[in-house]
Amino acid sequence: MSQKLIYLDNSATTPVLPEVADEMDRVLRNCFGNPSSMHHLGMDSSKVIKEARQTVAKTLKCRESEIIFTSCGTEADNLAIIGAATRASRAGKHVITSDIEHPAVLESMKALETCGFEVTYLPVNNDAVIDVEELKAAIRPDTVLVSLMYVNNEVGSVMPVAEAGRAIKSANPNTLFHVDAVQAYTKMPLRPQSMGIDLLSASGHKIHASKGVGFLYASDKVKFNTLMLGGGQQSGRRSGTENVPGIAGMALAADKAFSSMEEDVARMYALKSYFIGELLKLDGVYINGRYGRDSAPHIISASFEGIRSQVLLNALDAKGICVSSGSACSANHPGISRTLKSMGVKSALLDSTIRFSMSALTTKEELDYTIEVLNDTLPVLRRFTRK
Amino acid sequence: MSQKLIYLDNSATTPVLPEVADEMDRVLRNCFGNPSSMHHLGMDSSKVIKEARQTVAKTLKCRESEIIFTSCGTEADNLAIIGAATRASRAGKHVITSDIEHPAVLESMKALETCGFEVTYLPVNNDAVIDVEELKAAIRPDTVLVSLMYVNNEVGSVMPVAEAGRAIKSANPNTLFHVDAVQAYTKMPLRPQSMGIDLLSASGHKIHASKGVGFLYASDKVKFNTLMLGGGQQSGRRSGTENVPGIAGMALAADKAFSSMEEDVARMYALKSYFIGELLKLDGVYINGRYGRDSAPHIISASFEGIRSQVLLNALDAKGICVSSGSACSANHPGISRTLKSMGVKSALLDSTIRFSMSALTTKEELDYTIEVLNDTLPVLRRFTRK
Repeated sequence: MSQKLIYLDNSATTPVLPEVADEMDRVLRNCFGNPSSMHHLGMDSSKVIKEARQTVAKTLKCRESEIIFTSCGTEADNLAIIGAATRASRAGKHVITSDIEHPAVLESMKALETCGFEVTYLPVNNDAVIDVEELKAAIRPDTVLVSLMYVNNEVGSVMPVAEAGRAIKSANPNTLFHVDAVQAYTKMPLRPQSMGIDLLSASGHKIHASKGVGFLYASDKVKFNTLMLGGGQQSGRRSGTENVPGIAGMALAADKAFSSMEEDVARMYALKSYFIGELLKLDGVYINGRYGRDSAPHIISASFEGIRSQVLLNALDAKGICVSSGSACSANHPGISRTLKSMGVKSALLDSTIRFSMSALTTKEELDYTIEVLNDTLPVLRRFTRK
Repeated sequence: MSQKLIYLDNSATTPVLPEVADEMDRVLRNCFGNPSSMHHLGMDSSKVIKEARQTVAKTLKCRESEIIFTSCGTEADNLAIIGAATRASRAGKHVITSDIEHPAVLESMKALETCGFEVTYLPVNNDAVIDVEELKAAIRPDTVLVSLMYVNNEVGSVMPVAEAGRAIKSANPNTLFHVDAVQAYTKMPLRPQSMGIDLLSASGHKIHASKGVGFLYASDKVKFNTLMLGGGQQSGRRSGTENVPGIAGMALAADKAFSSMEEDVARMYALKSYFIGELLKLDGVYINGRYGRDSAPHIISASFEGIRSQVLLNALDAKGICVSSGSACSANHPGISRTLKSMGVKSALLDSTIRFSMSALTTKEELDYTIEVLNDTLPVLRRFTRK
C-alpha cells in the first residue's frame, strides 16, 4: 500500500511523458549547438527550435512568428502584461484584470501600479467567474490591456474568454487582451485569432513537458517591450540562449496532447463527474464552483468540514496520494486562498479545502482508491479535531 | 574525413557531459514534483534544489542563500544590474561598466539609461583590459554599481576583478560590484567574498550542463529588485517554478568541473600556447590580445589576413570544425565586433577574425587537425579573394 503513487496534483505540475524525456535526452546529447552559431551544429539546434515553433503554432492555428519561447509561464505572463502595457502607455495607463488571477499576473499588475498605472480588479461570482457586462463597463478609452485567466488554477472555473474578447474589442478596439492559459492549454478550446486574444501564456510543465520552459503567443500586430535584454535572440523579443531540449520537449508534449485532446478531455470530464459524485456521498464534503462542462475538465476543489487542509493533505500523502491545498504555485504562502475568499466560500471551509487535479493519465482506479482512503481517513481526522 | 567533429566553439555553448544528461534524465523521470508542493514528491524536488544550491555554493565558498537559480546567464546579468541598480537608485543613479561587455550587460545598461541613470563606459587597452586607475577615478559618491566581465567572450582577455573589487570598495564602500562570470566560472579563480564581488552571473550551458539554466550569486547583504514576478519562489527573489532537472544538471557539471579544475585549466593553457604557436607559423595570422596565464585558458582570437570570417568559418565547418566569428551569443548580429574595435584591431582584420574556444574535453589531436585544415585551406581561400 505504501508503494502506491496516486498523483492528483497535475495543476501544480505534471509527470514528464517518457517520449518527452526521450526527446529531451536525444536533443541534449545530439543537438547541443548554440542556435545562434553559424556552423552546422548551430543550424541543427536552430532547426529544432524552428520545428518546435511550427508545432506549437499549429496547436493555436497561429503563425510561427507569433510564438516566443520563455523559461516558464510566469515569464510569459510578466512579458505579456508588463511588456505590452508599458509599451502602450502613451495611449493610456489603465489595465483590467480579475480578483482571482495567478500571482504571476497579480504581481505584474502591482508592478504596473508602481509605474503609475491604474488597475481595475473585477470581482467574481460564487462560481469564480467574472461578469462580462462588468468587464465591458470597466473598459475606458485609456484601457490598454485586459488580462484574464482562462481556467482558474485553484477551482477550475472557466472564464468566458471568447465573450470577453468580443466585449473588449467592441468597447475599445485598441485594448489588448491577454489570456493566462497556463491551466487551459491542451484542455480548453483555444483559437487566439477568433477569440480576440492578442497575448496568451502557457507553461511546459503543466502539459507533461519539463520545468524551465513555457511560451507566449503574441499576435504579430502587438508591440511589447522585451523584458529579457541581451543578444537579441527570438527576433529581439526574448534574449538569452534558447533552452533547446526544453523547447523540443514542450513541442512534442503539445503535439501529443492535441492529437488526443478530444478523447482525453471527454474522459477527464467523465472522471471528474464520477469523482465528485463519490465525494458528495461522504459526510461534510462541499464542492467549490461549477463542475460540469462549464468548468475545466481536470480540477476539482473540495472542502472537508472540520478538517484543516494541511492535515488532510499529509494524511493523503501518507497513503501515496498527492494533492494540493490552495495553489502550489504560490510558494511558501499556503495561507488562505484569495480565489476561495473572492468566490465567497464560507470562512469555516477556507482552510479545509483540497484541490484534486487530474491529467490525461489519471485513471478511475486511482480515484476509487482516493475515495476509499478518504472514506477511512475523514472520520479519524475529525475525531482528533478540537471542537 | 567528413564525419569528423572538432568542436572549438565552447564559448558559445558546450557539449552536455553524459553524466549530466544522465542526471537530468533521472530527475526528469523521477523527481517531477513541484518544489512548492507540500507532499512527498514536492519535497523530493525541493531536496534536489537544496542539494544543488549547496553544491554550487561550495564552488564559490559562499552561503546557500546567496545562490539564485535563473533561466540563463542573460537573466542573471539582467537581475544583477537592473535589479540592484534600481533598488539602490535613492543613493544615486550612476553606474560603471566597460566598453566590451556582453549584450546582456550592455542592454541592461541601456535600460538603466532610459530610467535616468548615467552610465560610464570604461575603454580598454589593446589587450581588451580596463585600467583599474581609470575605474577608480570614475567612481563617484552616487555610483551605485560597477559591472565588469571577468573573461571577455570574444578574445579571452581577463579583467583584473580582484584589483577592481579593492579599488571600488576603497573609493566608495556602498558601490556594488557585479561580475559577469559566464566565461570565467570553472575556468578562473573565483572567491566573491575575498574579491569584493557582491553579484556574479554564470550560465549552465557554458560548463557542460544544459541550456535553460544559470545562476546569480548575490551576497546576503545586497538588496535588489526582483525581475520575475509571481509565486515568490526562491525566497521571493526569482518567481517561477524552478527548472529542477536543469538545476540538478548544472550543479553536477559545476561539481565535476571544480573537482578537476586545476588540471583542466593547466592542460587548456598548454594547448592554447601550443595552438597559438602553430597558428603563428601560418602566413598572415595575428592573435588578438594576450595569450599567456594572464588570459583565459580556453579562448583564442585569431585574425586571418585577407579572408572574411564567415568564409573561413564555412570552410572549417565543411571539414567538421566548429568555430565562431565574433560572438555567437549576439544572435543574428554577426556584424563587426565591438570588442575587437575597442581594443584597436586594424580595420582590415576586423571582419577576418575567428574565435577558437576550447573546453576541458579539447585534445591536442583536434588542434593538430585544425592546423592541418587551416594550412590547406588558407591559401585556397586567399586565391579566391578579390584584390
